[in-house]
Amino acid sequence: MNQALQEQTVASEQVFDGKLLKVFRDTVRLPDGSEALREYVRHPGAVVVVAILDDGSLLFERQFRYPLNRVFLELPAGKIDPGENILDTGKRELREETGYQAAEWTYLGVMHPCIGYSDERIEMFLARGLAHVGAALDQEEFLEVTSLPLEGALSAVMNGQITDAKTLVALFWAERVLRQGR
Amino acid sequence: MNQALQEQTVASEQVFDGKLLKVFRDTVRLPDGSEALREYVRHPGAVVVVAILDDGSLLFERQFRYPLNRVFLELPAGKIDPGENILDTGKRELREETGYQAAEWTYLGVMHPCIGYSDERIEMFLARGLAHVGAALDQEEFLEVTSLPLEGALSAVMNGQITDAKTLVALFWAERVLRQGR
Repeated sequence: MNQALQEQTVASEQVFDGKLLKVFRDTVRLPDGSEALREYVRHPGAVVVVAILDDGSLLFERQFRYPLNRVFLELPAGKIDPGENILDTGKRELREETGYQAAEWTYLGVMHPCIGYSDERIEMFLARGLAHVGAALDQEEFLEVTSLPLEGALSAVMNGQITDAKTLVALFWAERVLRQGR
Repeated sequence: MNQALQEQTVASEQVFDGKLLKVFRDTVRLPDGSEALREYVRHPGAVVVVAILDDGSLLFERQFRYPLNRVFLELPAGKIDPGENILDTGKRELREETGYQAAEWTYLGVMHPCIGYSDERIEMFLARGLAHVGAALDQEEFLEVTSLPLEGALSAVMNGQITDAKTLVALFWAERVLRQGR
């Protein structure tokens, strides 16, 4: 920790307790001794899965995202349940959303999508050896499963057709790992 | 728009009006006709800059991020002011945070960091032809400016030392663009 940059909590207040969003407003002491407000969301974390079919193509989903009022093309992902192991989250979400199970799981890394106003982390996995066993979507979850070859997905990124940050990071990451033959 | 996935707004309510965060809870009609709640943050959008010094290294910042209680290594970035052109945001933030001006600006693309609960978009630019003219940090803004070669930055990504999603996406994107000699 760089002490010259650190902020100390003076007071913390929960300002919204929603079903999904837990919003806090804290008073902090800045490095120069003055005080400031920090507003942020507490999030349980999530897992995103780069799932590679035997023909080399990747599983994708089309899902409507209300905050942006449109359908996004994104990798399978979902929130970590309380106390859940992140590998179990990956297996559960892949099964629930796409109907696939994977024989081989490789941990890739972690990203923080919104460091300015959320404590969310997203853990990334590569899943291979896929077998279709049937989907079991949550109630209220509507999505379409599709697949794209990795190069096609990277072209869709560079063309602006894929803009979801977790999907961008996981795709670029998987491309580097696969290029190295891991 | 895929009609089979779309959600329709039934009612919208602002549940928190903070200095930074504007939080909403909307009631929506799902594709099957049932209703659900959607909680989300409205954000003005942001710009991130991959700024390349004449020796080929990139400008980075170390900044304390309160929601995660630690210092992050990240690219220069900042929120779009009301009515501000995104290129002007990039120029302003680069100048304010690092003290550099750039002669050449290239638009890279856009990402959406938190599609589940925020409408934030982050626009990406490449900045070259840098000249140091002196920084003018906002009050309450504490950060350290540093630089890293692109390959060193990509190694720091794969080692888990850089986990900020906007920085990951912009670095991977810039690497692809620079590899193609654009």
